[in-house]
Amino acid sequence: MDAMPAVHPRPGLPTRVSVYEVGPRDGLQAEKAVVPLPVKLELINRLGEAGLEVIEATSFVSPRWIPQLADADDLMAKLERRPGVRYPVLVPNQQGFERAMAAGADELAIFVSATETFAQQNLGTTLDGAIDMAAPVVAASRARGIPVRGYVSMCFGDPWEGRVDPGRPAEVAARITELGCSTISLGDTIGVATAGQVVTVLDQVEAAGVPRNRIALHLHDTYGQALANVLAGLEAGITEFDSSAGGLGGCPYAKSATGNLATEDLIWMLDGLGIETGVDLTALVRTSRWLAGELGRPSPSRVVMALGI
Amino acid sequence: MDAMPAVHPRPGLPTRVSVYEVGPRDGLQAEKAVVPLPVKLELINRLGEAGLEVIEATSFVSPRWIPQLADADDLMAKLERRPGVRYPVLVPNQQGFERAMAAGADELAIFVSATETFAQQNLGTTLDGAIDMAAPVVAASRARGIPVRGYVSMCFGDPWEGRVDPGRPAEVAARITELGCSTISLGDTIGVATAGQVVTVLDQVEAAGVPRNRIALHLHDTYGQALANVLAGLEAGITEFDSSAGGLGGCPYAKSATGNLATEDLIWMLDGLGIETGVDLTALVRTSRWLAGELGRPSPSRVVMALGI
Repeated sequence: MDAMPAVHPRPGLPTRVSVYEVGPRDGLQAEKAVVPLPVKLELINRLGEAGLEVIEATSFVSPRWIPQLADADDLMAKLERRPGVRYPVLVPNQQGFERAMAAGADELAIFVSATETFAQQNLGTTLDGAIDMAAPVVAASRARGIPVRGYVSMCFGDPWEGRVDPGRPAEVAARITELGCSTISLGDTIGVATAGQVVTVLDQVEAAGVPRNRIALHLHDTYGQALANVLAGLEAGITEFDSSAGGLGGCPYAKSATGNLATEDLIWMLDGLGIETGVDLTALVRTSRWLAGELGRPSPSRVVMALGI
Repeated sequence: MDAMPAVHPRPGLPTRVSVYEVGPRDGLQAEKAVVPLPVKLELINRLGEAGLEVIEATSFVSPRWIPQLADADDLMAKLERRPGVRYPVLVPNQQGFERAMAAGADELAIFVSATETFAQQNLGTTLDGAIDMAAPVVAASRARGIPVRGYVSMCFGDPWEGRVDPGRPAEVAARITELGCSTISLGDTIGVATAGQVVTVLDQVEAAGVPRNRIALHLHDTYGQALANVLAGLEAGITEFDSSAGGLGGCPYAKSATGNLATEDLIWMLDGLGIETGVDLTALVRTSRWLAGELGRPSPSRVVMALGI
């Protein structure tokens, strides 16, 4: 069996998609054990070699909150930057911003919530408080000409609140776009969304003032829906999708929130649709199998499991 | 968290879909250990209670080939038929047909292959030989007014031959439609298909003379693509989908062919799209969790894993 599906494009879909790799940050922050820095550096290096053009490298969150990423400064200092690859980092607040700047980061991401309860449980603040905390980071970044991505979590469902009205992520996405975020990543943090809801939320976010070409989708596979939702997103004109090599990670704070969409499963579909990503699937699968060995457990990616590469 | 997603219909999709449950046959035939008859009967009974309207109950294949289903006659004798539920059975040949008739079956399915190699490896015959073997079964069923479903395996990829030209399943589907099969189930037996390929194959099967409303899709989740492919099928007007409760089974003969699409994962998506199926997801998840206990291992369904019902 080829390590690539048969290619059958569908009319009306984008011909090129940007895959935003979150494994080294969103994936590894969910690991119970702290992954050694050399392994992280090798992972990022191999992901770049496999053709990923955007790799979220780490987070400048307080080590008290996420000890797994306490080595963020060191990681950025030792990172071998590959030409043509972007290495954004997550910053939760002004202190994180200063650390990120000192470490030489040239692209950032901030994090807010579409729901009140998740803001309180995850960020220890309110929905408004999270936006207020992000505002000076976005302003300071813009002053330096540094692009900032804005993550909005719990756009489709919330572990405490249940269903989320699509007006909620729309309002929050519009507010952080006004602050100056260049891209808005809409997160299905607990993986409950279905394909019609994706379209509804995208429509409302656009109607609230966020241009569709600045919207990315961050989908989890908790209920098996991630790739169907990617397809719905592609049909709705979205061209940026977040995923995690080997399906690493999930949200450490949300119940049942296992299952970042695996980059391999995403690439299998995009390859099959003839949508260009620049990613070499075989190299990526080899990377995830190597990392699974380092972590001591198999990758949950269906493609990694299926391909005995 | 509700045991049901938020409902967001999409214009243009069917409003009702028939879920063809294959767990008791396609799922259990792949089990290493033989499942006791009372467990099988309870499974079928609970699936009917959960609202599944078509449950493929067993296969009248030779016990030498599939000892797991050697109790087919006994199962049919003891089956409590629920009003409004259909219980088709698989028959591989004339001998199986006679056993099925003696057991009181009133709906049948036959099995052919879109590829030469799989026919030889799986059925011990040729592609033509498999159709020749099915022909008298279909003829005898039609003479009795019994509907026969025709499964075509390896419609999208083959473990030995690799990619499969869409003309192959189209030709085979047309031939068994001419024989008199009432529904044609196109199988992605090794789960490699992607969403564009589904559309291509459906178009070619229709062009070869099989009306779209007589085509079902039998998708495997081996590469994580099953639900995206269901969505592509829905958009293409397909209203019948095969799935297996709790993701039971796969094809025992094909390398890597784990992963029937789990009925729960399918129902989550259809519920979210507001597409009626008659299935009670909570009752179904409870059934799969009970069966997982009987089998001594967890269900691979994402929804069953996520919902701690």
